Amino acid sequence: MTSSDHSNYQIHKNQIQLTDGTVYETYRTAGTLCSHDDEFNFKKGIHPTRQDWIQKRIAEGSQNHSQMYFAKRGILTDEMRYVALREGMDPEFVLNEIKIGRAIIPSNINHPELEPMIIGKKFLVKINANIGNSALGSSIQEEVEKLRWALHWGADTVMDLSTGKNIHETREWIIRNSPVPIGTVPLYQALEKVKGKAEDLNIDVFLETLEEQASQGVDYFTIHAGVLEAYVPLTKKRITGIVSRGGSIMARWCIHHKKENFLYEHFGRINQVMKKYGVSYSLGDGLRPGCIADANDDAQFAELKTLGELTKKAWEEDIQVMVEGPGHVPLHLIEENMRLQNEICSEAPFYTLGPLVTDIAPGYDHITSAIGATVIAWHGTAMLCYVTPKEHLGLPNKEDVKAGVIAYKIAAHAADVAKQHPGAQKRDDLLSKARFEFRWKDQFALSLDPELAERYHDETLPQDGMKKAHFCSMCGPHFCSMHLTQELRKEEAKSSG
Amino acid sequence: MTSSDHSNYQIHKNQIQLTDGTVYETYRTAGTLCSHDDEFNFKKGIHPTRQDWIQKRIAEGSQNHSQMYFAKRGILTDEMRYVALREGMDPEFVLNEIKIGRAIIPSNINHPELEPMIIGKKFLVKINANIGNSALGSSIQEEVEKLRWALHWGADTVMDLSTGKNIHETREWIIRNSPVPIGTVPLYQALEKVKGKAEDLNIDVFLETLEEQASQGVDYFTIHAGVLEAYVPLTKKRITGIVSRGGSIMARWCIHHKKENFLYEHFGRINQVMKKYGVSYSLGDGLRPGCIADANDDAQFAELKTLGELTKKAWEEDIQVMVEGPGHVPLHLIEENMRLQNEICSEAPFYTLGPLVTDIAPGYDHITSAIGATVIAWHGTAMLCYVTPKEHLGLPNKEDVKAGVIAYKIAAHAADVAKQHPGAQKRDDLLSKARFEFRWKDQFALSLDPELAERYHDETLPQDGMKKAHFCSMCGPHFCSMHLTQELRKEEAKSSG
Repeated sequence: MTSSDHSNYQIHKNQIQLTDGTVYETYRTAGTLCSHDDEFNFKKGIHPTRQDWIQKRIAEGSQNHSQMYFAKRGILTDEMRYVALREGMDPEFVLNEIKIGRAIIPSNINHPELEPMIIGKKFLVKINANIGNSALGSSIQEEVEKLRWALHWGADTVMDLSTGKNIHETREWIIRNSPVPIGTVPLYQALEKVKGKAEDLNIDVFLETLEEQASQGVDYFTIHAGVLEAYVPLTKKRITGIVSRGGSIMARWCIHHKKENFLYEHFGRINQVMKKYGVSYSLGDGLRPGCIADANDDAQFAELKTLGELTKKAWEEDIQVMVEGPGHVPLHLIEENMRLQNEICSEAPFYTLGPLVTDIAPGYDHITSAIGATVIAWHGTAMLCYVTPKEHLGLPNKEDVKAGVIAYKIAAHAADVAKQHPGAQKRDDLLSKARFEFRWKDQFALSLDPELAERYHDETLPQDGMKKAHFCSMCGPHFCSMHLTQELRKEEAKSSG
Repeated sequence: MTSSDHSNYQIHKNQIQLTDGTVYETYRTAGTLCSHDDEFNFKKGIHPTRQDWIQKRIAEGSQNHSQMYFAKRGILTDEMRYVALREGMDPEFVLNEIKIGRAIIPSNINHPELEPMIIGKKFLVKINANIGNSALGSSIQEEVEKLRWALHWGADTVMDLSTGKNIHETREWIIRNSPVPIGTVPLYQALEKVKGKAEDLNIDVFLETLEEQASQGVDYFTIHAGVLEAYVPLTKKRITGIVSRGGSIMARWCIHHKKENFLYEHFGRINQVMKKYGVSYSLGDGLRPGCIADANDDAQFAELKTLGELTKKAWEEDIQVMVEGPGHVPLHLIEENMRLQNEICSEAPFYTLGPLVTDIAPGYDHITSAIGATVIAWHGTAMLCYVTPKEHLGLPNKEDVKAGVIAYKIAAHAADVAKQHPGAQKRDDLLSKARFEFRWKDQFALSLDPELAERYHDETLPQDGMKKAHFCSMCGPHFCSMHLTQELRKEEAKSSG
């Protein structure tokens, strides 16, 4: 891990030193490890200066700690300068994107460990990793290890979706150890508070939970305020009904009480907590499709309209918003999701779960969903929530977390390249050049998973000398096309010279 | 394995029996196993009647055994009727697609073990698995086992790309054991015959090799006749030069002799062998890009134009043709590949290798390429050549073959769904319905990899009773959204009833 001093900001960059001594430097997920780097100071992640920035603003009497609040007043915050440096963008550009709501910097004032990052379609595509226990498994220690592991492989944000025992304590451990923004779905804990009976929920227990979690330092909250009573019947014809946990809880509440969703009704009260701590909204898509047959249906798009309305309500109070999206969507219906979300939610960042482009591959849903994720991110989705191989089957373990993160690093990067984001293709080009020149060690170092690449190579050619060999075991020495091309170039040079 | 008698054809279908006794039946790769089926009669694969069909045509004095030859004369062959039944299409429709060159049935008269299949954009998307040894590893036994394994997981065709020892014998074992079409790149063996010196190649040794392989029963040949002398300098500015083994061999030959590619010059003589045995062309893209920076460049598209010209030359002699495509292409440049190939090659089936949408993930190129493969197949590519996790790093083993095949089954199926191919989505819908109804066993059975899906589920909930449980370990009993939806539907029914 290296840091360079720009205008008093300690910016961490991902540095890869190549065999010729040159260094490849890239945007780096706040505090995450690059794969070569074991120096991560676990439990020592407090950002050296962010605490000061926050204290200064509190001393100045600010009542709204949302970055949008400052952006709208033309105030360039330290967080904005910081993310501008990290992404190589102009700070004024960052300020403007925050101001118009096209990007967010999730940053709770009670999460000083955070190294700020930005989510928006004009910036690098980000990925989120879900962790958290269920009633059926996993300890705090295991969850903190999953956090560390997800960051090691490159998660940009992490959601703690714990629903099992010790929800509060698990979250505390996760936030205190996280340099990346932490998101939660407060409804899960609220439901535990009413002993799992959805109909016993109410706005007071919800706000109490919100305050509890916000004061711990959660950076963004998924709020299922778009699941309106009138939309629930629209899911009746679906194959898989409602597949969002939050969505199904709120739907049940509405039907039981024959009343409007209390999160929608009391959205203004929720706003107050968001402002106080500078928490961002992640407006939940409680009616997202759970299979490709249910994609892009009336229920889904009805809710999306409400999410558009809530986006504007939050913006009126200068609160940052992103909007969650599906789910399961066949390839030919993906573009419509992005287009409608852009129109209806006025370009608030879209944050999708995949989507999976087919339902027939349980055990491989990191792949089925990475396909959809790449395409939707190319169309403008700002953050992709990963899916692990265990999706639909069980609670992911550490290896599943890694498989999910890597598949999504691929999706996000492929989308950055397809969007022709400045500099995105440089790593591809460096790696391909190393490949062509048989610099095996550089090829491994520039890979998303250097250890695996080297291990695969070494399975058949473990000898150290083979790290400079002009072939690998796939083709052998006589059939390496790259070797042949190099010979060809020599021959061409000879005959023309 | 079950077979049903339609008009005297033994059609093998993939049958999955669900717990309620209903049967899901689908197009099945010729002779391949469904995952529940261990009855594959290895070494007993000779199609019961195809030998007779061939003998009859030989007796009638046909000199051209290409399916296109018969299609152009309005003759509906048994192969056409057979594939029509398999795909649930009208035989006349099949005949017409073959006639206009938009589909091919690769079927050498010396491969009686073949159960005919069709490749064309109007049919289900197919996938190819490459196997074959290199000078650095693998025995005949291992390669035959990889064949069986690739078929087990659903490969539609297999290419034997052996370049190591015992090329002839390895191929014999593979063809005699294969109910699916076998493809090869005859240039590899021709090069071995001239002791690995590309410059010693000539049309005679090539035709001798072609005759040898065709008489064994190879169903399609990759022929790198489009790598013209004038195109080689166009690759000079590339990062990775020429990455096709065949392409780099022919380029070297051209530059050394300062002569035109002998495969191009003597294409008419090659045609004679193709006709005699009914072998199909797979026109090789020797100048395909080997990294995303080299995609869609002058070299690639210059060769494509020559492939279009060669397609017409082959069609003039009624020989079936498919055209190979890239390789490495960033997402935003994929559609152009398909559009140009359609225009230039008059809709001859496109057969692409991936493409990979980024270069930075060696070890995961089954995923990076499945993303591109899904998108290009959606645009009309008829067959996808798989990429395994070992691509760029070493010779794939059995597990890599499985990983590659499954990733490509996902890509092909997701494209079928996106193309709204009749019936393609049925399996998704059945699986999702089973998921919603907590019929775990049916969910596993309908999966591409039932064993893995069940194993993942059982990691945390192995008890047999859990196969009917209304939750899994991901969310636990209180947080299962599908369970909540079912409760909701009961509640709705109660309150409305």
